[in-house]
Amino acid sequence: MTEFELIARYFTRPNRSAMLGNGDDCAIVAPTTGNAFAVTTDTLIVGRHFLPTLDPFKLGRRVVNVNFSDLAAMGASPRYAMLSLTLPQIDEEWVSRFSDGLWTALDQYDVELIGGNTTKGPLAIAMTAFGELPPDGALKRSGARAGDELWVSGPLGDAGWALTSLIRDRSGDGGFAIEATAAQIEKYESPTARVALGLSLRGIATSCIDISDGLLSEARHLATASGVSIDIDIEAIPTGIETIDRSDQRTAAKRLNAATSDAERNALIVAQLAQSCVLATGDAYELLFTAPPDQHEAVAAILARENLPGACIGRVTSADAENHVRVLDAQARVMDIQVKGWDHFA
Amino acid sequence: MTEFELIARYFTRPNRSAMLGNGDDCAIVAPTTGNAFAVTTDTLIVGRHFLPTLDPFKLGRRVVNVNFSDLAAMGASPRYAMLSLTLPQIDEEWVSRFSDGLWTALDQYDVELIGGNTTKGPLAIAMTAFGELPPDGALKRSGARAGDELWVSGPLGDAGWALTSLIRDRSGDGGFAIEATAAQIEKYESPTARVALGLSLRGIATSCIDISDGLLSEARHLATASGVSIDIDIEAIPTGIETIDRSDQRTAAKRLNAATSDAERNALIVAQLAQSCVLATGDAYELLFTAPPDQHEAVAAILARENLPGACIGRVTSADAENHVRVLDAQARVMDIQVKGWDHFA
Repeated sequence: MTEFELIARYFTRPNRSAMLGNGDDCAIVAPTTGNAFAVTTDTLIVGRHFLPTLDPFKLGRRVVNVNFSDLAAMGASPRYAMLSLTLPQIDEEWVSRFSDGLWTALDQYDVELIGGNTTKGPLAIAMTAFGELPPDGALKRSGARAGDELWVSGPLGDAGWALTSLIRDRSGDGGFAIEATAAQIEKYESPTARVALGLSLRGIATSCIDISDGLLSEARHLATASGVSIDIDIEAIPTGIETIDRSDQRTAAKRLNAATSDAERNALIVAQLAQSCVLATGDAYELLFTAPPDQHEAVAAILARENLPGACIGRVTSADAENHVRVLDAQARVMDIQVKGWDHFA
Repeated sequence: MTEFELIARYFTRPNRSAMLGNGDDCAIVAPTTGNAFAVTTDTLIVGRHFLPTLDPFKLGRRVVNVNFSDLAAMGASPRYAMLSLTLPQIDEEWVSRFSDGLWTALDQYDVELIGGNTTKGPLAIAMTAFGELPPDGALKRSGARAGDELWVSGPLGDAGWALTSLIRDRSGDGGFAIEATAAQIEKYESPTARVALGLSLRGIATSCIDISDGLLSEARHLATASGVSIDIDIEAIPTGIETIDRSDQRTAAKRLNAATSDAERNALIVAQLAQSCVLATGDAYELLFTAPPDQHEAVAAILARENLPGACIGRVTSADAENHVRVLDAQARVMDIQVKGWDHFA
């Protein structure tokens, strides 16, 4: 099977709304009159963005949802996608399952695949996604204002928790009991872009970002782009992780010192790890956004309608150059948090 | 240096014409009223699309020109680009030179970089390029008609010849004398997208494609998309390679059998290799296009104005299911040619 046959068999469908689809040097597309394109590109690399054991069907869906999550965060409606597929070899069963997953997700959003390329090399998938929006309806990172409330569209930490458990399973290190539920593993492996939510938040949210790299890191992006600071209430963050330490580093260290058994010590460490997952692991693909307090009921109603267990988790304050993002405990005390968002080269 | 600092330092410049540029979840762009976007994506992988020894400055320019070559082949005017950069580690000197080359090429075409991402992994660079055109002015692959002339915008084989010499140099195998000139190596390492030519061919060319995978392969794409066949005159193909065997396989085999010395035999093999380079090696990034015979003078004038040593190298014939593309020798006899275009998985 040649590269061209592969593309023809698994990645080509009749053109629908593109002026020119797959099969030429370029595709030709235009947004509806008055609208603009929101465009984003992301690369998933085996062993870095997904485990080599991930079912290729799920990988296909994942590529689409990870990219469309950026469209959702702009309040854009997905229209077109382009795919760059780098494969170590042509394994037809793998490619067939991958393309099934890809089309399942594309069909769900009624999106056309308008081009791309395949090449040989270490497994990697790059997608460029095109969404459509009225330019003045875009949910930018830069619109948060002091006094706004901070919202998240769903539970955080579950995907990171699942990934941690999967990696520990693979490493064979049974020292700590990190057990993820099937639902958590599903949330990690098969994220869902919050596209409908993003569309509903147009005109309501003042800023928005998707949580791909961890809550604190994304909140910092919003704060920096908007020229504000952000306070997050740790108790308010929704999560599906059962046991989580919501105290700060110093308190946790004291408790650890006072622990009288290995079991107690391990439980404390695991609960601290859970906190890190909630605050700093990526792969959640929930939306983090701000809205004025007078929109509180409207936002809550939208989340309920979309069946999303989101929550108001903090507020926007005037810019504080020393603390772009602060995490507050149940007593509203500023916590000493060391964890950071994901940096590929850290 | 973090991933975000890397992007800020080397890949970010103030926004110009994009509605929203770098730094948010998506960029926001729209074509000029009445126009559409031509979009294309390509991935360059180390050791496959470029040698690990390639100067990163040239690599940066190459990424841009390889992608814009697809825009040129559609008759589109480059506007925006997005970059996905996968690096094994952050080598600041490398990144600095790469970004210098990238910006040099982007500035040459007055194109904005509107987004992208960096990640860790085996060196690979994916670009998505956005050009602009009036939708009915696009140079598609599908418009060739029987009677049209076939043109190429410049010499073929030189880039493939240079690559062959570079690979042989690296392998240390001195059996055959394959010596590329500095100009040939420059043509291989630093291709130039034929953007101005593509724009000039709007309304004149009936079909167009860029030669990234080799003449025969690209001619086959034109023939298939247009439902025609194509005859190529081997003597008419411009090339900078000095000695080239323009006879067919059978004649070449006979001559080889009759050779009386190793030197004579090697010279024959090298001349045959030269033929393969002209007909089937990629990386030329010249345009291959068709135009009606009554546009012959117009096309010649455009090539002269653009200072391109292009030539009319054949003609379009009615569809012949058995022979999408034929190569004819100096006596207009159909040649027996076995070489094929590049297939990443062959």
